[in-house]
Amino acid sequence: MQGEGKSSKLWGGRFSAEMADVALDLSESTGADGPMVFEDIWGSQAHAIMLAKCEIIGEDDLREILRWLEKAKEAWNDGSFELRRELEDVHMNVETYLREGAGSEMGGRLHTARSRNDQVATDGKMHCRARIIDIREALADLRAALLARAEGHEEAVMPGYTHTQHAQPISVAFWLTGHASGLARDDARLADAYSRVNTCPLGAAALAGTSFPTDRELSASLLGFQGVQEHSIDCVGTRDWVAETIADLAILMSGLSKIAEEFVLWSTWEYGMLEIDDAYSSGSSIMPQKKNPCIAELTRGKVGVVYGRLTQILTMLKGLPSGYNRDLQEDKPPLWDAFNCAELCLRAVAEMIKTVTFRLDRMRASVGQNFATATELANYLVRDRGLPFRTCHEIIGSLVGVLVQEGKTLDDHARVQEILAEHEQEMTLEEIADIVDPVSCLNRQVSIGSTGPEPVRTMMGRLSEGLKNSRADVAGARDQLEGAYAQTMKIVEHVLAGGPLSGIDLG
Amino acid sequence: MQGEGKSSKLWGGRFSAEMADVALDLSESTGADGPMVFEDIWGSQAHAIMLAKCEIIGEDDLREILRWLEKAKEAWNDGSFELRRELEDVHMNVETYLREGAGSEMGGRLHTARSRNDQVATDGKMHCRARIIDIREALADLRAALLARAEGHEEAVMPGYTHTQHAQPISVAFWLTGHASGLARDDARLADAYSRVNTCPLGAAALAGTSFPTDRELSASLLGFQGVQEHSIDCVGTRDWVAETIADLAILMSGLSKIAEEFVLWSTWEYGMLEIDDAYSSGSSIMPQKKNPCIAELTRGKVGVVYGRLTQILTMLKGLPSGYNRDLQEDKPPLWDAFNCAELCLRAVAEMIKTVTFRLDRMRASVGQNFATATELANYLVRDRGLPFRTCHEIIGSLVGVLVQEGKTLDDHARVQEILAEHEQEMTLEEIADIVDPVSCLNRQVSIGSTGPEPVRTMMGRLSEGLKNSRADVAGARDQLEGAYAQTMKIVEHVLAGGPLSGIDLG
Amino acid sequence: MQGEGKSSKLWGGRFSAEMADVALDLSESTGADGPMVFEDIWGSQAHAIMLAKCEIIGEDDLREILRWLEKAKEAWNDGSFELRRELEDVHMNVETYLREGAGSEMGGRLHTARSRNDQVATDGKMHCRARIIDIREALADLRAALLARAEGHEEAVMPGYTHTQHAQPISVAFWLTGHASGLARDDARLADAYSRVNTCPLGAAALAGTSFPTDRELSASLLGFQGVQEHSIDCVGTRDWVAETIADLAILMSGLSKIAEEFVLWSTWEYGMLEIDDAYSSGSSIMPQKKNPCIAELTRGKVGVVYGRLTQILTMLKGLPSGYNRDLQEDKPPLWDAFNCAELCLRAVAEMIKTVTFRLDRMRASVGQNFATATELANYLVRDRGLPFRTCHEIIGSLVGVLVQEGKTLDDHARVQEILAEHEQEMTLEEIADIVDPVSCLNRQVSIGSTGPEPVRTMMGRLSEGLKNSRADVAGARDQLEGAYAQTMKIVEHVLAGGPLSGIDLG
Amino acid sequence: MQGEGKSSKLWGGRFSAEMADVALDLSESTGADGPMVFEDIWGSQAHAIMLAKCEIIGEDDLREILRWLEKAKEAWNDGSFELRRELEDVHMNVETYLREGAGSEMGGRLHTARSRNDQVATDGKMHCRARIIDIREALADLRAALLARAEGHEEAVMPGYTHTQHAQPISVAFWLTGHASGLARDDARLADAYSRVNTCPLGAAALAGTSFPTDRELSASLLGFQGVQEHSIDCVGTRDWVAETIADLAILMSGLSKIAEEFVLWSTWEYGMLEIDDAYSSGSSIMPQKKNPCIAELTRGKVGVVYGRLTQILTMLKGLPSGYNRDLQEDKPPLWDAFNCAELCLRAVAEMIKTVTFRLDRMRASVGQNFATATELANYLVRDRGLPFRTCHEIIGSLVGVLVQEGKTLDDHARVQEILAEHEQEMTLEEIADIVDPVSCLNRQVSIGSTGPEPVRTMMGRLSEGLKNSRADVAGARDQLEGAYAQTMKIVEHVLAGGPLSGIDLG
Repeated sequence: MQGEGKSSKLWGGRFSAEMADVALDLSESTGADGPMVFEDIWGSQAHAIMLAKCEIIGEDDLREILRWLEKAKEAWNDGSFELRRELEDVHMNVETYLREGAGSEMGGRLHTARSRNDQVATDGKMHCRARIIDIREALADLRAALLARAEGHEEAVMPGYTHTQHAQPISVAFWLTGHASGLARDDARLADAYSRVNTCPLGAAALAGTSFPTDRELSASLLGFQGVQEHSIDCVGTRDWVAETIADLAILMSGLSKIAEEFVLWSTWEYGMLEIDDAYSSGSSIMPQKKNPCIAELTRGKVGVVYGRLTQILTMLKGLPSGYNRDLQEDKPPLWDAFNCAELCLRAVAEMIKTVTFRLDRMRASVGQNFATATELANYLVRDRGLPFRTCHEIIGSLVGVLVQEGKTLDDHARVQEILAEHEQEMTLEEIADIVDPVSCLNRQVSIGSTGPEPVRTMMGRLSEGLKNSRADVAGARDQLEGAYAQTMKIVEHVLAGGPLSGIDLG
Repeated sequence: MQGEGKSSKLWGGRFSAEMADVALDLSESTGADGPMVFEDIWGSQAHAIMLAKCEIIGEDDLREILRWLEKAKEAWNDGSFELRRELEDVHMNVETYLREGAGSEMGGRLHTARSRNDQVATDGKMHCRARIIDIREALADLRAALLARAEGHEEAVMPGYTHTQHAQPISVAFWLTGHASGLARDDARLADAYSRVNTCPLGAAALAGTSFPTDRELSASLLGFQGVQEHSIDCVGTRDWVAETIADLAILMSGLSKIAEEFVLWSTWEYGMLEIDDAYSSGSSIMPQKKNPCIAELTRGKVGVVYGRLTQILTMLKGLPSGYNRDLQEDKPPLWDAFNCAELCLRAVAEMIKTVTFRLDRMRASVGQNFATATELANYLVRDRGLPFRTCHEIIGSLVGVLVQEGKTLDDHARVQEILAEHEQEMTLEEIADIVDPVSCLNRQVSIGSTGPEPVRTMMGRLSEGLKNSRADVAGARDQLEGAYAQTMKIVEHVLAGGPLSGIDLG
Repeated sequence: MQGEGKSSKLWGGRFSAEMADVALDLSESTGADGPMVFEDIWGSQAHAIMLAKCEIIGEDDLREILRWLEKAKEAWNDGSFELRRELEDVHMNVETYLREGAGSEMGGRLHTARSRNDQVATDGKMHCRARIIDIREALADLRAALLARAEGHEEAVMPGYTHTQHAQPISVAFWLTGHASGLARDDARLADAYSRVNTCPLGAAALAGTSFPTDRELSASLLGFQGVQEHSIDCVGTRDWVAETIADLAILMSGLSKIAEEFVLWSTWEYGMLEIDDAYSSGSSIMPQKKNPCIAELTRGKVGVVYGRLTQILTMLKGLPSGYNRDLQEDKPPLWDAFNCAELCLRAVAEMIKTVTFRLDRMRASVGQNFATATELANYLVRDRGLPFRTCHEIIGSLVGVLVQEGKTLDDHARVQEILAEHEQEMTLEEIADIVDPVSCLNRQVSIGSTGPEPVRTMMGRLSEGLKNSRADVAGARDQLEGAYAQTMKIVEHVLAGGPLSGIDLG
Repeated sequence: MQGEGKSSKLWGGRFSAEMADVALDLSESTGADGPMVFEDIWGSQAHAIMLAKCEIIGEDDLREILRWLEKAKEAWNDGSFELRRELEDVHMNVETYLREGAGSEMGGRLHTARSRNDQVATDGKMHCRARIIDIREALADLRAALLARAEGHEEAVMPGYTHTQHAQPISVAFWLTGHASGLARDDARLADAYSRVNTCPLGAAALAGTSFPTDRELSASLLGFQGVQEHSIDCVGTRDWVAETIADLAILMSGLSKIAEEFVLWSTWEYGMLEIDDAYSSGSSIMPQKKNPCIAELTRGKVGVVYGRLTQILTMLKGLPSGYNRDLQEDKPPLWDAFNCAELCLRAVAEMIKTVTFRLDRMRASVGQNFATATELANYLVRDRGLPFRTCHEIIGSLVGVLVQEGKTLDDHARVQEILAEHEQEMTLEEIADIVDPVSCLNRQVSIGSTGPEPVRTMMGRLSEGLKNSRADVAGARDQLEGAYAQTMKIVEHVLAGGPLSGIDLG
């Protein structure tokens, strides 16, 4: 029921001076509010309909208010309505547009039983949920890209690394589905956050609710919220939903940086396992050999944007007492920036993955040259000969030691056979060739979630299923929002056409 | 299937030198691993049972392994088994205990089809889920304390603040339930995180799974996990669950800092609305008048601990390639510290709230002295006289201006009547007294979630219900873990008693 | 000697595709580069003069290059030259302006013996040093405002707080000079950072220097640097100067948040010690009694901006190898934002302080009502009677206990006398009145740096002296930069007028 | 003059209850205070000497106090004096030791004219400066190690990277001195911080100074401070020196992570340029080929520790009002942890560098295989033929394109000659061989700070000189502290031996 603002016209006689320039510079938020103009107008329309339905304002007033809000929306869309800095924020700009069109009284009536405190929280949550949907769609595209590139690469071997050192052979599909597995949790986190974002603070007023007989459930429903955020002081004074959303984006970015790092490394001359597409690379004006992995580097470099924004929002929240404090205004720049950054990186990384060339020959060659299948040879002795593992490890350790000294690899089967024989382990050349062959090694991996082609295909199925469900969930959320907006517009048109509120279903 | 470690005894011939002292200082983690000894032993027992059931090791081997792991647990509990720094981590300490007891071969057999990479992720997740349960219990106690103190204070008025300035009257119960509302979301976040933590990485081995015919679902079940974390490279190389958990704790701490700030402010001489119990205060060795709100200050000061730990874990994760990297070892100190800090603050704040004295007289007096009901007077004119809101606002604005100049308040009913009459608004003294009375003002608040006694009672009911459900959920989680442990112990006892694995239900 | 860029025209035949749109969106930096256009042009002029002086390009070439760079500067100033996104950054925009004016060859000649890697570091440092100067000036204004308001308030008593609780009487001047003392260190930190920022990376080329016989000291001198940043790979691949600068601004903001918090608290109705000027407050459109401390709240809320930007830059720097990496491009948005935020807050806080009204009566009254001089009474007994301190503390503790119970204060001199007599400490009413009087208490504080009027005056003198020196230092830095620019312009005009380089002193 | 504490014994009658257990758990700091016991005792001795010299306590009292403080120090050193949690902090523990030995009155006398507020700031600064000295020494050792390894490698070529891609040939000495250049600034930053840390808060008392005629300069001098931190409220309520120190360490860690990243990458099988010594590596219990760069990984992983601690301290400082607040207690854990982490990493990295083997053959081979000298070939045509740079770039671009297609490199001199001839650029085989030879390319780099042997030798000289000066500065700082301690001890011995204060020079 309260609207706190800067214009001395609004808060009348107690103030003897206009706000100073530097104070306005510090306090106006029209830049950060721009993305919420659509939501502010929709929110005001829903509020007005609710007020009229509850007979707090008259239907003629409602018609005038809705008419001018529609005009404001059109004017915003065609660029003729711009936010004026001296009006400080989106709410006062929209209200002023209304006052200037419909007369000052109308603006005042619209502001009954609400305040800028609940209004800004409502606008923010509305825009936040829309951006979560965008992000989840971009995330789904990236997951789809990973799965599409995994397809057919279930037996394409490459080195699996631990400590950035060769460990064991894995398949390209295994590597890619590994990232898809992590990203599925990012999506789940954002879905969980969405459920906490999508409750409606409108009607909480300044901090304590109102004595007008409002219907908060109606306005929540018109705005597509899944329900009312009940406690009024909780509505206006908390921003945990901002912090949670940015935290989820920060964790998502840490996952993107993992992909980015691999693209930087593996596209080097030394690794040579990935050839990034020219359209996602940059070159040098002088050095013709140069092709730089700019998408990967910039994604990695932009992790800090979202981490920093998380620090910002958490810092801001520290030590604030209950109720609205002006500090809370500093919630939107970090949230928008985190969304922009994460969405851009998601889209760029997805394209980079779609278009990258896997240099399967280099991957295959690399696996064979650095003893990545030594462990499998030891395992073979355990299984086939019933030897204690420790004994096998010693034999193979010794074998590798000799080969390294001689500049040989496990592909020198005859030499392997010879050395094993010295340890009284007779093996045929065929056995050896089979065991140390990376592809056959891959094929032997059978445990759930392992790099074997079968386990990987199982995972690909499950990940595709999860992706499908996630896309359906996101589409459902988007439909709900669009449905609510359509319903609001239907009522607006009905009223503008002169129809009585009683003549239309508001639910 | 891999175990990477420092002891040259373990990695044999390739190394020509012992690890240097400073390298050991940097790399050993026995301090951070201490809290996971219980989990490491339980995990090893489940792994051994699974290996035997899958016939990868024999039942005699299993018996020896289980026997010595039980001994290790007892020895840890009675203090006779201490983690040795030179063995670097909990895994090598437990394995060495086993080797020294059951012989070196046994240790090697236990380590079949696993590696320290999946083992440390499993131990970490097991301890993390236990700590989430602890936190949720402490959180439930705090929520209960807030609701208990709200009880009976639905009509106790106090100033509601925005911008730390008097805004409108609220009730003490409204203030307290506001915090309870926010904390319910903290609980929901932790429950969501729990579902992502409680999946089992064991059996992912080094990064690629294993060629042994393991049964990952069995070990997951014995360890009380809700299922397997499927993708092996995702199991060993990600720590998003650590980051998410700490992020949730960071947001929780921001909420505690809100309570803390209010206790610091409102227990000052100037506010005088809260009297913190002596047992939760500190004094001065010199100034006898001093009583310092140390619990509130320290809770506020400790917000930084968890924020900082969040920065730490996110920083560590930035730019790591897939697979296990040693950097990941730096996940446990921040996670444990964040849990310790948040749990201690939750418990201390709950006690502070249980024992605080509300100085209801000061609250009530304060509300009356600073025009907190002026808005309600304007609303009255809107409703009762059908006046446009703007006109009412001007009248009341002018009224307040005059009263301020005269050093009067709205409690000077006669003077209020006089000034209103000058604006042609006749009101009886009774009307005025009723409208500007904070308690009657409170009683008029009717909107959902508002400070009116009825809406507050509704919220108290809903919050209690939510708390009950949350407690049931936490109890269920705890039961599941205890049940799984009991099942493991039953199998252990059965085997130690000489029984065959086939003679007991492993499910 | 290297220029790496996106335009396929620049890196010729190796690339078969134009950069994709999403890749350009991610990688172009024209938004962040805008503030450095002036520096980029000046830097190019200095570089060209150096090349000509070293006979790497001819004087006719120099004339053409300088002519078109001057035109670019004019066009930028009058708005006819705008940065084109598809050219990716400021360097390619300026070079393209030159190519389009003077022909493509000329642009290539200018880019001899430099690369965008050293160029961007140079531009960034040039703009950074200019902004440090701005910040130090704003900081000096704030320090001056604090000292100006302290003037004449050396004996104006107010409560000194510890734990937000009354501790001992202090003077208003003491409080204000406390902040001035801390801010002096912020200034010193920024001066130290300036010395590390103000060394010239130009000429380091891509990473390794150049085989052309350049004169890096000449270009450094023309650009007003205090010297060359010597090591080429260090020049292009480090941003510790960015991190240090933002860290200094973060610490500065933490100090401003201290002031902000006090203004929020002390302007409440409960404290009532400060009356913030209307021009630096905001009101409510409904509640006429409301005056909100928006400058203080927003300053406090904006602390997070700079903290977050610090997290960002540090995150970005983590784990990058030597040499230029594209991640480094993400250094400018956080740096500019941190400067903008800190400067705006400094200016707003300074104005708020200049215009605030101290409610000296409330301060004085408050000191007397809560036993703030009890300690002094104990000290008196120690000094005057030679009693052990512990005995005195017990006596006064007991005295205060009785007074609190009786609802009295230390101003009830007769009762104080009575109670002291019960403890066998006879004191005259005059003695008592003198000792417990806050002003006389203040006057007795004699230790260095204490709140006594004399020590405070001493500090005011020292702080003024420090401020004067700091202003002189800043003015000197600004003079040096302006002098260097004037010198460059003198050479430019000389060359444009057809004069030979040998005809003018380049030093 | 104030001492605020928990023990009800100290703050007497106003408190009716002991502190609750959970409150003590939250508020006691004996763990974090351990490192400051030495400083607390030294600080108390200096304070006592000052009090006696100013005739605030008697010389007999002084003797008793000094005697028991000496005993406390001995008992701490031999382990018989342990900090008791219930006494909350180091100050109350030391004072209690004194009270229990010398009687309660003595403890009270020592606490005259000081408070725990100034005492803890003094202890913290004393320990902080000692740790800065340690860090600077460790940093000097690392710089020395880098310079020692650079020695003799001025002509050892390796690939210089930008974007992790081959750019131009550099020397090993150039690479190493690049790091040394950055670390020199870290040292300078810490030296600057030291100057702000090393001023003495002792005597500021609770917040306002004292009415006792103290001599703050004397105690500052006895404690080795370069002077008094003047303003009392600034002394007790600020921790910018903590934040600055941790910020410096965070920036330092970002530099170490750069080295760490290179060691991780360049010791891979793919790069193969570095062979980390076995003593600074870890292996695998199973995979004999494995050697993991654990020092580098852990250093990189521990960057987050210091970044996080920086976030922590800044968060804590946000929004605190002037004067001591209990939140400030949370300054020590982050500061100590940051020091411990940075020092350990510095020492480990230095050893890793000292013992690493450069695989010069691999480096040399790598440079020749990826066109790193193409730029130099273009430069040659510019210089030798007077061709426009753009033309040369096109020729060489075309040349490289053909060679890539043919699978050749610039070492195929005949083919290079042939292709150049097609572009009408005749060159002899000798010319070509010379120009594309990485070593000769290196030798041609002449610009200041470039990778040419001469510029590198010049830098090595300057860096050695800088290191020498830094070591001298650190040694001077250490000497000053040791001298001050020796002087304090001399006075202590003199007094304990019964000598009068007047009989010894206190300066």
